[in-house]
Amino acid sequence: MSFETFSAHLLRYPDLTFSLDTSLMDIPSTFYETMMERVTKAYTDLLALEDGNVVNPDEERMVGHYWLRNPELAPNDEIRSSITDALALLRDFAAKIHTGEISPPAGGKFEKLLLIGIGGSALGPQFVSDALRPAAQMATYFFDNTDPDGIDRTLAEIGDLSKTLVLVISKSGGTPETRNGMLEAEAAYTAAGLEFGQHAAAITGHGSKLDLYSESNDWLTSFPMEDWVGGRTSIMSTVGLVPLALQGIDLDAFLAGASTMDAHTRETNIRTNAAMQLALAWHHEGNGRGEKDMVVIPYKDSLALFSKYLQQLIMESLGKRLDLDGKEVFQGIAVYGNKGSTDQHAYVQQLRDGVHNFFATFIEVRQGRAGESIEVEPGVMAGDYLQGFLRGTRKALYESGRRSITISIEEVTPRTIGALIALFERAVSFYASLVNINPYHQPGVEAGKKAATLFLELLADVKDILSEKAQTAEALASALRADPEEVYHCLTHLAANGKASLESGSSPHEDRFRS
Amino acid sequence: MSFETFSAHLLRYPDLTFSLDTSLMDIPSTFYETMMERVTKAYTDLLALEDGNVVNPDEERMVGHYWLRNPELAPNDEIRSSITDALALLRDFAAKIHTGEISPPAGGKFEKLLLIGIGGSALGPQFVSDALRPAAQMATYFFDNTDPDGIDRTLAEIGDLSKTLVLVISKSGGTPETRNGMLEAEAAYTAAGLEFGQHAAAITGHGSKLDLYSESNDWLTSFPMEDWVGGRTSIMSTVGLVPLALQGIDLDAFLAGASTMDAHTRETNIRTNAAMQLALAWHHEGNGRGEKDMVVIPYKDSLALFSKYLQQLIMESLGKRLDLDGKEVFQGIAVYGNKGSTDQHAYVQQLRDGVHNFFATFIEVRQGRAGESIEVEPGVMAGDYLQGFLRGTRKALYESGRRSITISIEEVTPRTIGALIALFERAVSFYASLVNINPYHQPGVEAGKKAATLFLELLADVKDILSEKAQTAEALASALRADPEEVYHCLTHLAANGKASLESGSSPHEDRFRS
Repeated sequence: MSFETFSAHLLRYPDLTFSLDTSLMDIPSTFYETMMERVTKAYTDLLALEDGNVVNPDEERMVGHYWLRNPELAPNDEIRSSITDALALLRDFAAKIHTGEISPPAGGKFEKLLLIGIGGSALGPQFVSDALRPAAQMATYFFDNTDPDGIDRTLAEIGDLSKTLVLVISKSGGTPETRNGMLEAEAAYTAAGLEFGQHAAAITGHGSKLDLYSESNDWLTSFPMEDWVGGRTSIMSTVGLVPLALQGIDLDAFLAGASTMDAHTRETNIRTNAAMQLALAWHHEGNGRGEKDMVVIPYKDSLALFSKYLQQLIMESLGKRLDLDGKEVFQGIAVYGNKGSTDQHAYVQQLRDGVHNFFATFIEVRQGRAGESIEVEPGVMAGDYLQGFLRGTRKALYESGRRSITISIEEVTPRTIGALIALFERAVSFYASLVNINPYHQPGVEAGKKAATLFLELLADVKDILSEKAQTAEALASALRADPEEVYHCLTHLAANGKASLESGSSPHEDRFRS
Repeated sequence: MSFETFSAHLLRYPDLTFSLDTSLMDIPSTFYETMMERVTKAYTDLLALEDGNVVNPDEERMVGHYWLRNPELAPNDEIRSSITDALALLRDFAAKIHTGEISPPAGGKFEKLLLIGIGGSALGPQFVSDALRPAAQMATYFFDNTDPDGIDRTLAEIGDLSKTLVLVISKSGGTPETRNGMLEAEAAYTAAGLEFGQHAAAITGHGSKLDLYSESNDWLTSFPMEDWVGGRTSIMSTVGLVPLALQGIDLDAFLAGASTMDAHTRETNIRTNAAMQLALAWHHEGNGRGEKDMVVIPYKDSLALFSKYLQQLIMESLGKRLDLDGKEVFQGIAVYGNKGSTDQHAYVQQLRDGVHNFFATFIEVRQGRAGESIEVEPGVMAGDYLQGFLRGTRKALYESGRRSITISIEEVTPRTIGALIALFERAVSFYASLVNINPYHQPGVEAGKKAATLFLELLADVKDILSEKAQTAEALASALRADPEEVYHCLTHLAANGKASLESGSSPHEDRFRS
């Protein structure tokens, strides 16, 4: 490749120390021409979204995450002030926690933070606090599941709860994992002789179950969560900003990074719009049908959760059965990855030699560390190797026909992290327009939830019907007019958790269960 | 699906509390018939491997990880005693560390452990220690990269080094990331006024660079790493067992779990061999060409790293360009996933509704927690929800035509973790035989390493040639007879790390650099 070609495909935003290199994606310029109509529609869709139109038709909602870092964009004063008011409220709360004006009943200051949430209400804060960890003022822990062992493990890590502040995050307050985590935390505080409400704050929709619960139990406070913010794009709402403020992360820089990136990616020139460049590169590589997985490899330990964050943002947004015209399209892009150069010792063997079902996205952080480095060889530092491995891997992949995108930033800071998040949010919005889908809903997760509810109902029935007489799953299922396999799973679960006794047979048919 | 069909596809090993359910993989029994010849070959290959034949032809090596948990299998007394001797040696070392017979020069006992390694020399210990963490005696930290920021961050987490034991793990001693990590650690100990060698032990090949370095610097000890153990299957060699013994994990149970699984998966009856069942299911689903990604979702927080572990084991083993006859085949299976039910709030939307390019592997742990649970609803515990979500998601996916495998164990223990690792190692061996590739080498990672070395050489040249006169990348490249793009990347890297000054132009052509 000539330096000419490279330069032509290198897009730079010096105000964000950002560059995007798509030179190894082999996109012919004719491709841009064929996409022009859809690109124009994508820009129109973006304007409609930023203007406050209902762009999530299935849920009849506005989509406002771009307003969060630029409240002037918001479609009306009410929304504008809901953003600025919440920001003022949470800054005030964090300041009072830091000074000790809001303090635990046992005295002293709150020193630790337990965040209870799942999906968008956990992954964003997890990614950003891990990326920016050195600045953290409060050690942060997460309940992000309904696993009792996992809850016990996190409680053991925290140790003393008396100086631990709890944030419970759920828009509806009805997410069972979060509700369960909250009840488990409450029980742990009670067992420790502590008043849970005096340690707890909520982030939730106004009037939600959680809002009411927090009020009637005298919690420290409740922050609003707006209807027009989706979970996977909630990191710049109260969901992300409350924990980040508590951790002492510079919110202004974080929001400014995002809004600066938004300004760049509002430009309609394809060549200078990094988000459109990404969306088009994804489209070209996967034929607009997600035919290639996206492997995200940041060469920086602190960005190790970024691929997991993008996995949610991209797959939950783009993985859709129907397009906006109601046609079955089975869209999506699979995303995975961890960090380089570590991943080179894990699966880069397959990337270079194996099944060609992916393209790579490298994230480069140019600076090795802020301070001085020792030499690991004459004139060579550990960080030079990191850079060398990124460049070497990128080249080796391309030589075997595997394409890649390289995104570079100077350092991991609140500003650059804000910019990276905004870039991918915008690229997802654009890509969704290019392939004509709604990226702002998640209809596919309902079926699993419903099936889970039915399972829990059956579990209760099975527990009730168990007697001292040992019976097979089929006999019990017949009595309950239920599916024997489902009943069998309920029974093995009850047996493993001390609620049933199992007399093992040589197959599920012959296993017998009693109370 | 009838209970009959389910039962016929449920394989149980009660001595491991293990079951494997392939009923939702829709494998017709005729498929087994068509595969019979290859299955027979796979069993023959396994016998040859366990007998000590050279089954890694490219590297002319025996492959002995199955001997590690069953030394009687080893092909000769020398190998047999190398296994048992190393085990005795490392148990003795761990006991002396725990009693304080081997202690830090500053007094007291070693309380923390810093493990320096990458790939197989880090991921195995990371997964197993995370899974079994509650039993850990020593808090464990990792340098698993050559990222200076990451090293600084881990050092900050450790804090006081004076009671921290370091394990440096590298077969050849030549892995740059590990060598760099070691030198950085050594510098940190020296800066803290501590004698590094008095805190360090090596795990390395006999006579390797690292072996010699540890000897000449009076390290505490050096454990042998055998030629016939590959990195990604080294968890039951000194690589895994030294850290696990230091953490107080029950090695006997861990090894017995693996050897018990090995015994089951040595049986030639396809229907009762869980590893062959897995290999055949993978083959059927991906047409023997890896056409479907494997999404691994354990519903248990402590198993969150299992998919990353399997990602390495499977992708590095199976991702191969050539088959054993030298034909280009571009094999492999892409693996990703984190944990349930958390992942349901991230990408299960795409799995159910989106691009159909995967099959799922659910890992169920039947017991919620060892102790009592509170009720989150009348009669319902948090762990019931975990089980409900697994069953619900599995069902919802199948209803939309997405297949899945479900593996169940009773609890996460050293024995069940040993068994799970052994199961997948064996499944990988079998699958490789079915598709006729060598799963024990990794030829594809060399190209990236070579390109990295060239980059580092160029970086040195570019640094040398920089002068006070600002010059473009092209001018400098011309003087060095090097590629201008490569030179440009060297220059931006030097500029970001204080080794060059950049006068920014509007494009890479116009950027000028000086010393």
